[in-house]
Amino acid sequence: MRTYDITLTISPDLPTWPGDPGVELERVEKIEDGSNANVSRVDMGVHTGTHVDAPFHFLQDGITVDKLNLSLLTGRAYVLHLPDVEVITAAVLEEAQIPPRTRRVLFKTRNSDLWVKEEPGFQTDFVGISEDGAEYLVRRGVKLVGVDYLSVAPFKNSRPTHEKLLEAGVVIVEGLDLSEVSQGRYTIYCLPLKLANSDGAPARVILIGV
Amino acid sequence: MRTYDITLTISPDLPTWPGDPGVELERVEKIEDGSNANVSRVDMGVHTGTHVDAPFHFLQDGITVDKLNLSLLTGRAYVLHLPDVEVITAAVLEEAQIPPRTRRVLFKTRNSDLWVKEEPGFQTDFVGISEDGAEYLVRRGVKLVGVDYLSVAPFKNSRPTHEKLLEAGVVIVEGLDLSEVSQGRYTIYCLPLKLANSDGAPARVILIGV
Repeated sequence: MRTYDITLTISPDLPTWPGDPGVELERVEKIEDGSNANVSRVDMGVHTGTHVDAPFHFLQDGITVDKLNLSLLTGRAYVLHLPDVEVITAAVLEEAQIPPRTRRVLFKTRNSDLWVKEEPGFQTDFVGISEDGAEYLVRRGVKLVGVDYLSVAPFKNSRPTHEKLLEAGVVIVEGLDLSEVSQGRYTIYCLPLKLANSDGAPARVILIGV
Repeated sequence: MRTYDITLTISPDLPTWPGDPGVELERVEKIEDGSNANVSRVDMGVHTGTHVDAPFHFLQDGITVDKLNLSLLTGRAYVLHLPDVEVITAAVLEEAQIPPRTRRVLFKTRNSDLWVKEEPGFQTDFVGISEDGAEYLVRRGVKLVGVDYLSVAPFKNSRPTHEKLLEAGVVIVEGLDLSEVSQGRYTIYCLPLKLANSDGAPARVILIGV
């Protein structure tokens, strides 16, 4: 069974959401300078790179990332490849024929091409899920939604899609690199850092072929 | 199959290694102040809480955490309970009768009691693995070693144990909370953040009963 690492590497070069904190990663103790060990420090927004949104990201009474149920974050998942779609709407999803009883869906779109390019910088015209697309996923009983750019929603229209998903207890995983993964069934292990009372957390996410 | 979260929650209250950066976790955008979403920032040493040491932590030519092989970080693991041991030596390990062909071992010691106490602060008298204990594990073909305090080695004697393990390509996982886990066999998913060129990374670590 092949294991796919669908996580972005965190570095200061990674594009970040406009207005969010950037990434600082520096070695503060160096063996070459006489320290006993090399020790680095990282300073970043919690929605950096591959990360999970907790309900508290958009909902004031929502739970925080350290409280998310591991049973949602791990288990069977379906990767849906939508190479020619600009917005993931309810109509797109109906036509796509997601297998029955799918609880976790990752969307592979043209966004994933961005992660194999050299420093493309932050993009605003990425593919996201519309409000009615989010409603469709909730109606279908989906409990985890993964996307291959830094927001599950189209740019400049973040709230409706996030709200619909988070109010229904759907875990949102953003910033996945699905460039090496084909459409089909996998087992996902999506493990976000356990940050106390946080609205989100960077995660390491892997898929295992089934 | 029960899933055990053996990860410490990252917060400013978590004890950190003397001299290492502390933990800052703050909400920099707040819905109650008119922001579109809640957004937090985290600033911490990469050896905070439950974390992985890469060879580069102690070896100048060692690989960094983003290059660690996922096949070492996931798979069958054995939890060994050593409730009355002060130092994990080769003699202790020989007597403990670790099952043949064990590739990943997690040591549950009295250290795990510290994680269920209220703010005990950093402790110096934690249980660690001696240099000959590390040599024994390498000889046995172990490829991942997990401990329930912030260093795999006894305090004030970090280098020999780390060096022996890291030179042999053994992944070191520190800061595990094994208070809820019994001795026995599990499947481990140890997923560190993919931090570019870093000597270590905080991780989320789970065990699944087999």
